[in-house]
Amino acid sequence: MEENQLRAFATKIFSIMGCSESDAVLAADVLIAADLRGIESHGVARLSGYVRLWEAGRINTKPNYQVIQKKPAVCNINADAALGLVVAPFAMRKAIALANIYGVGMVTVHNSNHFGIAGYHALLAAEMGFIGASATNASPLVVPTFGAERMLGTNPICYAFPGHSFPPVVIDMATSAAANGKLEIAERENKPLPSGWAVDKEGHPTTAANALKMGGALLPLGSQPEQGSHKGYGLAALVDLLSAVLSGASFGPWVPPFPAFLPVLPNQPGNGLGHWFCAIDVEAFRERADYNAAIDTWVSRFKATKRIEQSQVVYVHGEPEAAQLEKRLKKGIPINAEVMKDLVSLGLKFKVKI
Amino acid sequence: MEENQLRAFATKIFSIMGCSESDAVLAADVLIAADLRGIESHGVARLSGYVRLWEAGRINTKPNYQVIQKKPAVCNINADAALGLVVAPFAMRKAIALANIYGVGMVTVHNSNHFGIAGYHALLAAEMGFIGASATNASPLVVPTFGAERMLGTNPICYAFPGHSFPPVVIDMATSAAANGKLEIAERENKPLPSGWAVDKEGHPTTAANALKMGGALLPLGSQPEQGSHKGYGLAALVDLLSAVLSGASFGPWVPPFPAFLPVLPNQPGNGLGHWFCAIDVEAFRERADYNAAIDTWVSRFKATKRIEQSQVVYVHGEPEAAQLEKRLKKGIPINAEVMKDLVSLGLKFKVKI
Repeated sequence: MEENQLRAFATKIFSIMGCSESDAVLAADVLIAADLRGIESHGVARLSGYVRLWEAGRINTKPNYQVIQKKPAVCNINADAALGLVVAPFAMRKAIALANIYGVGMVTVHNSNHFGIAGYHALLAAEMGFIGASATNASPLVVPTFGAERMLGTNPICYAFPGHSFPPVVIDMATSAAANGKLEIAERENKPLPSGWAVDKEGHPTTAANALKMGGALLPLGSQPEQGSHKGYGLAALVDLLSAVLSGASFGPWVPPFPAFLPVLPNQPGNGLGHWFCAIDVEAFRERADYNAAIDTWVSRFKATKRIEQSQVVYVHGEPEAAQLEKRLKKGIPINAEVMKDLVSLGLKFKVKI
Repeated sequence: MEENQLRAFATKIFSIMGCSESDAVLAADVLIAADLRGIESHGVARLSGYVRLWEAGRINTKPNYQVIQKKPAVCNINADAALGLVVAPFAMRKAIALANIYGVGMVTVHNSNHFGIAGYHALLAAEMGFIGASATNASPLVVPTFGAERMLGTNPICYAFPGHSFPPVVIDMATSAAANGKLEIAERENKPLPSGWAVDKEGHPTTAANALKMGGALLPLGSQPEQGSHKGYGLAALVDLLSAVLSGASFGPWVPPFPAFLPVLPNQPGNGLGHWFCAIDVEAFRERADYNAAIDTWVSRFKATKRIEQSQVVYVHGEPEAAQLEKRLKKGIPINAEVMKDLVSLGLKFKVKI
């Protein structure tokens, strides 16, 4: 489907939810960017999920942000239960403005919701020549090493470095071994999971594609203790601490779940989801020309890495997504049947043509 | 061996190398801290390695740092080929001072050398109530996903969060599946490696403990593509980009190797090793009392995670090292026979009693 058609549809849905015109356009842009970059799990496939959260009263589409600034180069934003899709770019732009003055800017957000792909926000900085970083905590799905309980989200973190002759280097990753969306694909295709992705509800390794539905959990990056799963657990913890313990959001097993049918646990230790953003002004560290030469040398050297097999490309992070973007801008976005069904029923419900 | 005895010995060696009294004390403190926290691979076991780098003319023990500050909350330090052990705490203290004023401070270092355990530097911030982060690039030993060439170091990154009723949460990790030191232990014990740690010189998986000596390489965290090794590759790249491409240090396969007998590659794209430091003032984001309550709740909830087996503890990061520290301060530091032999011959050479 052409991206403009999808974009118009998503924008209308967000408008109907009560978003201002500019917020609706922005929220749709974040979703469409995911689809364009080939990260379909976080694109329009999530639209009906946001609608359900709004219907459940957990998203406020007319938020009044409270920006708490106690020291010059940082701030902490109470998002007033806004769409994360909308407050995240606001926070990132704030971080960029601070970095422009101080060399670095750091912004946390609490009382928020799911913010889409981390890469969208970090790229806002990279596109302006700044290094951008973004992270968020998320619904608990991941076990700590030796644990048999969902304690952490897939807690993604992204860093985007401005490119010069090449696209930006975008390191955008869930801190679990595999993202939830990959399990859904395996289940749809009726295939077993690769080892190291999931455990059953007792915490034992499983390859059942419906592991999560059966009460199981995802494994942190590294998968097993012997292969360093405590590091993946540590990265997920890092994101939780920066996004929530620093900002005042909820954390760990208490993070309000994205699926609206799941209950929010009582005795919340903080407020909503938490995000963390950082922008770094490259020119506050070295001359732009020197940085440009270095990033070009870095990217071209890594692209030229000796390969195991000639047919297997050693990618630089962000390269496959940039290629996908170029292709999909021309040829449109493929929408799978299940997502299409979901969008059509959303359209019928809200009387919006897709 | 009692820590004071080891500390005095290391201090004297650094003095003989030409360090000022305060630099020698500081460098020794970084090494002893590693031994005390149970990270023996980065403690006095490395002392003779630093000596050899100094003998090879690659370490300047009388450096004049150049602090380049272009914007208020950041700076970039030319370390003048100093011991990383000494310039790293200097840079971290600078970051803390900036964070104290601006809420966040970020400092990069180029033209440096190996800085010891990342945790030492990040903990300087945590002990003062700030969040501290430190990272460094290192000698190339790690393959990118689908690569058959050493392109990245084990590039450690550490974040330390100040504790309240519990010790600081210290997430201190090499971004490879396993650190080099673990392979050395396996080789000494004549045991095969666990899968997922190393590849041979063609890039194929191996369990040979001497893999590195045979021209092989380490795998990034995640180990295999299916288990997310591109994420470990991305983390190592992130550390390289922040530490070196931002600062002007050398990077990727060009990073000057720690073993002094290995040649430094020609056509260096930057200057020496690079480090990155960040300090965050918790109180610039929220009230200290609120942070304290949140970190206490976070730590105690994670310690109470449901276990797979009752005998397997779910640790909070930094907890095992804090326990080790307490024990070793009382009972001394165990030194293995090989390291002892190395220290004794160092003592003989420089006429310093151990």
